[in-house]
Amino acid sequence: MITNPSTKYRPFPAVALTGRRWPSRTVTQAPIWMSTDLRDGNQSLIDPMSIETKLEFFDALVKIGFKEIEVGFPSASQTEFDFIRRLIVEKRIPDDVTIEVLTQSRTDLIERTFESLEGVPRAIVHLYNATAPSFRKIVFGMSRDEVKALAVEGTRTIKRCAAERPQTHWTFQYSPETFSMTELSFAREVCDAVSGVWRPTPAHKMIVNLPATVEAAMPNVFADQVEWMDRNLAFRDSIVLSVHPHNDRGTAVAAAELALLAGADRIEGCLFGNGERTGNVDIVTLAMNLYTQGISPGLDFSDIDAVRRTVEHCNKLPVHPRHPYAGDLVYTAFSGSHQDAIRKGFAQQDVDAIWEVPYLPIDPADVGRSYDAVIRVNSQSGKGGTTYLLERGIGATPPRRMQIEFSRIVQERADETGIEVTPQGICDLFAQVYLEATGPVERVAPQTLRFVDTDFGMPAGPVDAGKVAAAIAQVIGQAVGVVDIEEQRTADGKTAVFVGVRIGGASRHGARADVGQDDGSVHRYGASIRDSRDMAVIDAVVCAVNRGARAIAVSESALAA
Amino acid sequence: MITNPSTKYRPFPAVALTGRRWPSRTVTQAPIWMSTDLRDGNQSLIDPMSIETKLEFFDALVKIGFKEIEVGFPSASQTEFDFIRRLIVEKRIPDDVTIEVLTQSRTDLIERTFESLEGVPRAIVHLYNATAPSFRKIVFGMSRDEVKALAVEGTRTIKRCAAERPQTHWTFQYSPETFSMTELSFAREVCDAVSGVWRPTPAHKMIVNLPATVEAAMPNVFADQVEWMDRNLAFRDSIVLSVHPHNDRGTAVAAAELALLAGADRIEGCLFGNGERTGNVDIVTLAMNLYTQGISPGLDFSDIDAVRRTVEHCNKLPVHPRHPYAGDLVYTAFSGSHQDAIRKGFAQQDVDAIWEVPYLPIDPADVGRSYDAVIRVNSQSGKGGTTYLLERGIGATPPRRMQIEFSRIVQERADETGIEVTPQGICDLFAQVYLEATGPVERVAPQTLRFVDTDFGMPAGPVDAGKVAAAIAQVIGQAVGVVDIEEQRTADGKTAVFVGVRIGGASRHGARADVGQDDGSVHRYGASIRDSRDMAVIDAVVCAVNRGARAIAVSESALAA
Repeated sequence: MITNPSTKYRPFPAVALTGRRWPSRTVTQAPIWMSTDLRDGNQSLIDPMSIETKLEFFDALVKIGFKEIEVGFPSASQTEFDFIRRLIVEKRIPDDVTIEVLTQSRTDLIERTFESLEGVPRAIVHLYNATAPSFRKIVFGMSRDEVKALAVEGTRTIKRCAAERPQTHWTFQYSPETFSMTELSFAREVCDAVSGVWRPTPAHKMIVNLPATVEAAMPNVFADQVEWMDRNLAFRDSIVLSVHPHNDRGTAVAAAELALLAGADRIEGCLFGNGERTGNVDIVTLAMNLYTQGISPGLDFSDIDAVRRTVEHCNKLPVHPRHPYAGDLVYTAFSGSHQDAIRKGFAQQDVDAIWEVPYLPIDPADVGRSYDAVIRVNSQSGKGGTTYLLERGIGATPPRRMQIEFSRIVQERADETGIEVTPQGICDLFAQVYLEATGPVERVAPQTLRFVDTDFGMPAGPVDAGKVAAAIAQVIGQAVGVVDIEEQRTADGKTAVFVGVRIGGASRHGARADVGQDDGSVHRYGASIRDSRDMAVIDAVVCAVNRGARAIAVSESALAA
Repeated sequence: MITNPSTKYRPFPAVALTGRRWPSRTVTQAPIWMSTDLRDGNQSLIDPMSIETKLEFFDALVKIGFKEIEVGFPSASQTEFDFIRRLIVEKRIPDDVTIEVLTQSRTDLIERTFESLEGVPRAIVHLYNATAPSFRKIVFGMSRDEVKALAVEGTRTIKRCAAERPQTHWTFQYSPETFSMTELSFAREVCDAVSGVWRPTPAHKMIVNLPATVEAAMPNVFADQVEWMDRNLAFRDSIVLSVHPHNDRGTAVAAAELALLAGADRIEGCLFGNGERTGNVDIVTLAMNLYTQGISPGLDFSDIDAVRRTVEHCNKLPVHPRHPYAGDLVYTAFSGSHQDAIRKGFAQQDVDAIWEVPYLPIDPADVGRSYDAVIRVNSQSGKGGTTYLLERGIGATPPRRMQIEFSRIVQERADETGIEVTPQGICDLFAQVYLEATGPVERVAPQTLRFVDTDFGMPAGPVDAGKVAAAIAQVIGQAVGVVDIEEQRTADGKTAVFVGVRIGGASRHGARADVGQDDGSVHRYGASIRDSRDMAVIDAVVCAVNRGARAIAVSESALAA
């Protein structure tokens, strides 16, 4: 079935547009945003919102900074009617916010709509009717002229109802439904007939809204359609040109952005892309996309997780872990090379400079995210991520070769368990492998490990790791050399000491601290974090020696077996 | 912070492209698809896949119809190395499928990569290195020449390793990493240097893959970049031009589609848009978008829920309810006007005709979805949805005015409870209100309801609803007229009778069966579905009369209070 759709579907027709301008333009300012969360969003929910929930959502939208909010379809539902009355009677609408309501073109519905708005200071009355051929034919059995007449008739009724209530500042919005599937010339004809009745002026504009009620074409085709309307609509200087994209093809955000290039002034959508079927266009993503281009969106998502919690609570639908800007995983890197790049980026990023951290399109702090979740470690991760989390946990940075040694240990653990290693798990593993594995020195015999007391003289003055190693060499009867050492002060005043040693084989100073060597020696790291720097040095050397001696014992026992 | 990003972010630079061609083109055929679910997808998972899980996913990809599958980064992880060996040794790769592996440009890693591929009949070796300025500066501290030399050096090594293993058919792929953020002229310079070493031919092409590793610009800008490369790359007739979009701006699907217009031949992505952060581009959506344009995608999603179950199981990540084509809610309508339109669309849709059902961009059956979930009823729904579900439940269709009456009852129930009403719940409610509310006739007094036995003579011949009504009128002492009647045979041979009656007020035949009338009469519907047509008529009339009489009693008792 999938391999031969040609009998059932046909290509979307191209738009006859000469001298196309939108591809050469760039977006330079934010559009007017209109949230239809409480209308188009709400009507798509499995369990629509109660009045209390709607009030909570409305307050959140106001706080984010929306100035136009569609609050319902009052003639279609008592709940929506009552909600609108609450907003008005309880004076919950701030002075700079305009509510919007939807109505079909029927006198009784329009009158009921105005009833719901009694006493509101400002409102947008949004009239729609279906203009697309499939609706004319299948749903309404109407000719083009009848469809146009219905739109004009509704406009006249709204004009009359508005005139009867001069105490409210009325704005009129008209939507030819499924604009994107309507013949462009007919869409214009209906819009022009409507605006011809309403008579908008540059000082008191009306809104013409172009819905992609069902997204049916590539976003460049939608942009062509919008540019065609932008060029051909009557009263263009008196019209706010709006778009209302849905996401059936997964390209609503692109369609909205290209529509801005094509002349749209205003975008209708929902937070996180809620709405019928695949949702309305996601205003969060659109706004943050502008933000990352240096353009202020006029909407505040600086605490995006709080917004998300409210929306998830009200809609009873989740935001996906990979949702742009807001998902749980979108600032997270598991891959070793990504983690390494991010770690270096953080280290070089100056405050107030242009943001330039690899793999992070925005600073997570801009949306209230901490850096904690940026780097997470599993079997795909390398030393970068492990070291980053370890640094944050222990307050010190092991030398590079020790990072490699430890990240292999972490990776083996992740590979064995198949699951993520938490930051705490990494610090616990580091403690277990190094910090808690100091003294006593273990005496190595071919088949068994025997313990003896630490037994070497403390030299006067600062302890020297090389001398400690030499003393231990005496005790265990094997060559021990220090090949790497690093001391760091931690934030709480302790000293972290990281020591790489070589055990067994021929004595060579300064050799590379690799895991296994051609000469039969073994190289291992040890670490200790203590109040006393000298004790830390001793512990770190003992830890490294014990680990190396154990590795030799394992390898010899394997050879003997 | 949100309101002033200008100090921290800057607009993405425009592409200097004259005579832009892509906006005038349309897509006419499917690209080559490459699934990177097992590589880029896997490395982004909280818990990466085990070998067994990878095998399951690989088999699913083969079944869908992918011919190129990136299976891992064998030099970076033992699990991935072992997985690739399993595929090859166990001969799990069909003859028409080519596996692909990723490697960095280091001789030891490349050699390890070829080791993992020993004995494979065909393979794509995918070399990448970072070319974007932020990576050159922050991550690697490399000059342009050093970056180019690294790519060339890796290409030479791969060419040598491939030549040493002539029994395998090798294809070479090169990716300038974060192509989309690299200076175009430099991206071309590196690609040309690489292809100059590899020397592809039209008969044995190489792949040049252009990753938007992080999506940082609008999709039209990406299309401009791709068109520029398409026009300017050396060896263009010997190159498969590939794109690899990520979804950080929520426009990856659009970017991939516009890239096809701009000259791309191949798309890399993941099922349902898994992948680092916001994910790779979603190949399911891309393929189904082509499908809805009458273009065969060459991938089979005719059982999309089975694919989804496999992917959710392997990735341990959900597919969102609003995910295009695959989400739980994307073929669902709750809104009354949508349901009405869909119901009419279904009724008029001929098999094999061009698909044209309002609000449903594709036939859910094409992806293995039943129509059951298309129409769901809550407080936002109207008679269309209720009637659709009722029809499917009881096998008969009430007359239009009864649909309105019953859908109001359903809506009140939904409004009261605030939750969805299931199809079973609708049928139960219909049974409770109508079918189980027949006989005996209730005698109405102002304050109380008293029951009397049904008591009227059965006339000879088919029962006439009007005569039944007249007989009941005698019993209850109120005018009763039949205003609407419809009889239907159900699939199981019963007769469904729907009767509208008018009770009280002046006697008028043929009046509209509205809920309340100016003349004080009450109009109500009754229904019955029985083996005997005559008994069904009697029951339906009694049901309607009882409901009407109860309504009068309630209203009189309210007046008296």
